[in-house]
Amino acid sequence: METQELETAKEQLDSHIDDTLKDELSSVDLAEHLKTIKKHDETQFAKYLKELDPESLANAALEMPDHMLEDVIEIVPKDKITQGISELESDDQAELLDNISDIDENKAKEFFEELDEKDRADILKIAKYDEDEAGAYMQTEIFSAKGSETLKSAIDRLKILKEKEEIENVFQLFIVDEKNHLKSAIALSDLIIYDFSLTLNEIIEKSNYDYKPHVAIDTENVNDVIQDFDEFDLNVMPVIDANGVLLGRITSDDIHDLIEDRATEQLYNLAGVNDEAEEEETVVKSGKARAAWLFVNLCTAIISSIIIGFFDKTIESVVALAILMPIVASMGGNTGTQALTVTVRRLALGEIEFKDKKRVLFREVAIALVNGMIFATLMGIVAYFWFHIPLLGFVIAASMIINLTLAGFFGTVIPLTLKKLGIDPAVGSSVVLTTFTDIIGFFSFLGLATWVLL
Amino acid sequence: METQELETAKEQLDSHIDDTLKDELSSVDLAEHLKTIKKHDETQFAKYLKELDPESLANAALEMPDHMLEDVIEIVPKDKITQGISELESDDQAELLDNISDIDENKAKEFFEELDEKDRADILKIAKYDEDEAGAYMQTEIFSAKGSETLKSAIDRLKILKEKEEIENVFQLFIVDEKNHLKSAIALSDLIIYDFSLTLNEIIEKSNYDYKPHVAIDTENVNDVIQDFDEFDLNVMPVIDANGVLLGRITSDDIHDLIEDRATEQLYNLAGVNDEAEEEETVVKSGKARAAWLFVNLCTAIISSIIIGFFDKTIESVVALAILMPIVASMGGNTGTQALTVTVRRLALGEIEFKDKKRVLFREVAIALVNGMIFATLMGIVAYFWFHIPLLGFVIAASMIINLTLAGFFGTVIPLTLKKLGIDPAVGSSVVLTTFTDIIGFFSFLGLATWVLL
Repeated sequence: METQELETAKEQLDSHIDDTLKDELSSVDLAEHLKTIKKHDETQFAKYLKELDPESLANAALEMPDHMLEDVIEIVPKDKITQGISELESDDQAELLDNISDIDENKAKEFFEELDEKDRADILKIAKYDEDEAGAYMQTEIFSAKGSETLKSAIDRLKILKEKEEIENVFQLFIVDEKNHLKSAIALSDLIIYDFSLTLNEIIEKSNYDYKPHVAIDTENVNDVIQDFDEFDLNVMPVIDANGVLLGRITSDDIHDLIEDRATEQLYNLAGVNDEAEEEETVVKSGKARAAWLFVNLCTAIISSIIIGFFDKTIESVVALAILMPIVASMGGNTGTQALTVTVRRLALGEIEFKDKKRVLFREVAIALVNGMIFATLMGIVAYFWFHIPLLGFVIAASMIINLTLAGFFGTVIPLTLKKLGIDPAVGSSVVLTTFTDIIGFFSFLGLATWVLL
Repeated sequence: METQELETAKEQLDSHIDDTLKDELSSVDLAEHLKTIKKHDETQFAKYLKELDPESLANAALEMPDHMLEDVIEIVPKDKITQGISELESDDQAELLDNISDIDENKAKEFFEELDEKDRADILKIAKYDEDEAGAYMQTEIFSAKGSETLKSAIDRLKILKEKEEIENVFQLFIVDEKNHLKSAIALSDLIIYDFSLTLNEIIEKSNYDYKPHVAIDTENVNDVIQDFDEFDLNVMPVIDANGVLLGRITSDDIHDLIEDRATEQLYNLAGVNDEAEEEETVVKSGKARAAWLFVNLCTAIISSIIIGFFDKTIESVVALAILMPIVASMGGNTGTQALTVTVRRLALGEIEFKDKKRVLFREVAIALVNGMIFATLMGIVAYFWFHIPLLGFVIAASMIINLTLAGFFGTVIPLTLKKLGIDPAVGSSVVLTTFTDIIGFFSFLGLATWVLL
């Protein structure tokens, strides 16, 4: 089976190199096949790196984990790498160079210096933005024209751009003024039905529609851009600077990647896993990042145990308490996690904001309180019949109502507060939450027991 | 502040109705404003439902939770609703009627009967698919032509379709044969540079490119379609049946929604929250769905407590065990959740499959084992110095190594097995996992203690 995997990978890459493949291979597939071959046979891996055309290699490199990319920049000649980079779109060029720079800053600089002036300028434009800014995700290849131009002259320019393979996936023509300020954006499907001898201004006038596009500001948070794509069902969005000058565009495939990455990050962060470390797939990196979270969890678990330790005399005299106390903590943890997860996700999707805190908190605490009362009653009855200790049922029921209600409260307040402080509400919030629910659970249960039962 | 919210909502809707708004309101905004108004003032809510144009109302209805949609179909006259539905695109028509049908099947039928024949036929085509099939997400409005047609004749047809507002967001022309089999798909940006008097076959011949599109089969799992969009950076994908007949297309905005929904579902399922119940936003529905999960958790927590109960004599003689046992369970739960979350997500993203089980399992168990040894050693030392009981450090260390390693194992095996059985690996897996880690944790710790310490 292992060798079969290798054979398939080699066959697919061979056909890709000979261009005899029925279905096109995606960059993800290319990277995946290379990974398989590298795992089995380093010599074959080097051979395929050599045989792949520069563009395919550069595209595959975008999908590789760091340790593979490291091999690529070591094995493949510099010329071939720069050739590959030069054939990418500007946003991909910036991303790949950024990835290479994480491994070897000097190599990244060398490759960059070999690119032509236009590529270098475009990459610098994109690289200057933070990773949460819209500008970091734009490509600078755009199809634009002045309003005074005829449609024919614009189309002729498109023809040249396409022949030179300088632009792909064109859906819109951006209309700009003399100073490159964005004025309108017209879909090709709207343009194609007009007489090509008309100027773009004449077309806009005729159509009785202003073609005002949804725009992204370059320094805007990319989450807001994602939301606009979502709400207005967009396929592409022009990016402008604060003065309205057209800089580039963001396309829906970039938005797809962002949405998937954001969701993975949230899921992982809630579970105490680092998404970037996991991407590497090496046991050491993932293991280290996870150990960091487990260490935090160990510390908070020890704190909970110290709380239990305060009540060692109580436990010695009523051992039933030791048997039941994990139930109180576990139910609190689960109730809190429900509220936490819903709040984190709704914050991320922009469905709620900090200003909705009263409404959201009311809802979550109400649910937690009602469920708390239901399960407290149930567990109170179970505990009474299990241990036949008068008042034990009351103690566990009361502590569960307290713990579950507060779990709903903290499960909502923690992410809302983190968001307000500008911290990602998914990071660390579940550890903080279960610390609260464990401490409150053990303290209320054992404390009440000490007071009522002894 | 409450009234300010109401004022803003009213102002925005007023300007939308008068068409004096600077920035277009999305359907999400419309639904949000209507919700705000409904919360404060039912009379005003009814007034706005009356004043909104049918298309805006239908679009907003698509974004409404059930309880609001219920009001809409009660308050708004039937004619206006059917008018609104008729102005939607086919996939939205099918979705809205499906939502209405969930509330009142007869009303949905009534609205459906009022639509014209073409709309009815299109809706039936879409509605027959399951919600995990690609066909359920397609729209039937497409721009297609025969290869023998001239580009001009195709464009003239597009012009008419656009004037009748029958089609929006056209990026591609689909070329079909006499029997409507899909042959090629050409982007408008490719077409626009050719002479309009050429036939489409001539254009294809001239371009020296086969324009073979990535296609979705109508009965294909929609997750595979999402993956194709992702891997090949697509904006639109034609949908064909098993015989190759063109049925419709899926656009990237539908894919966005699917990606977001899928991520929300995973996050919620892992936390024991039902995504559909949460959408409703009513306390009762959400609370009930969450209570169901809490009940399962209560049962498993009671099982863990029964395990602890087996060792009541041991705990009575060494109360330190009661103090430390939550640490063993909590560290196991966290280690398992890390493995579980990573496995669930990577399965969902198609990065791993059941056949990779050996490799994935090896990786996850290795990480869990190494972390287990590190934290076992650490905790063993802490326990020894805390309680000064010889061998207690050894007992907690040994049980932590057992529990954390098995946590890594079950955290990986549970989702892989569920996936293999055709069950969503996110549903219920965390409850099953923590049941395992609690039972193993308590049993190994208290069992070892009984054996070694007593």
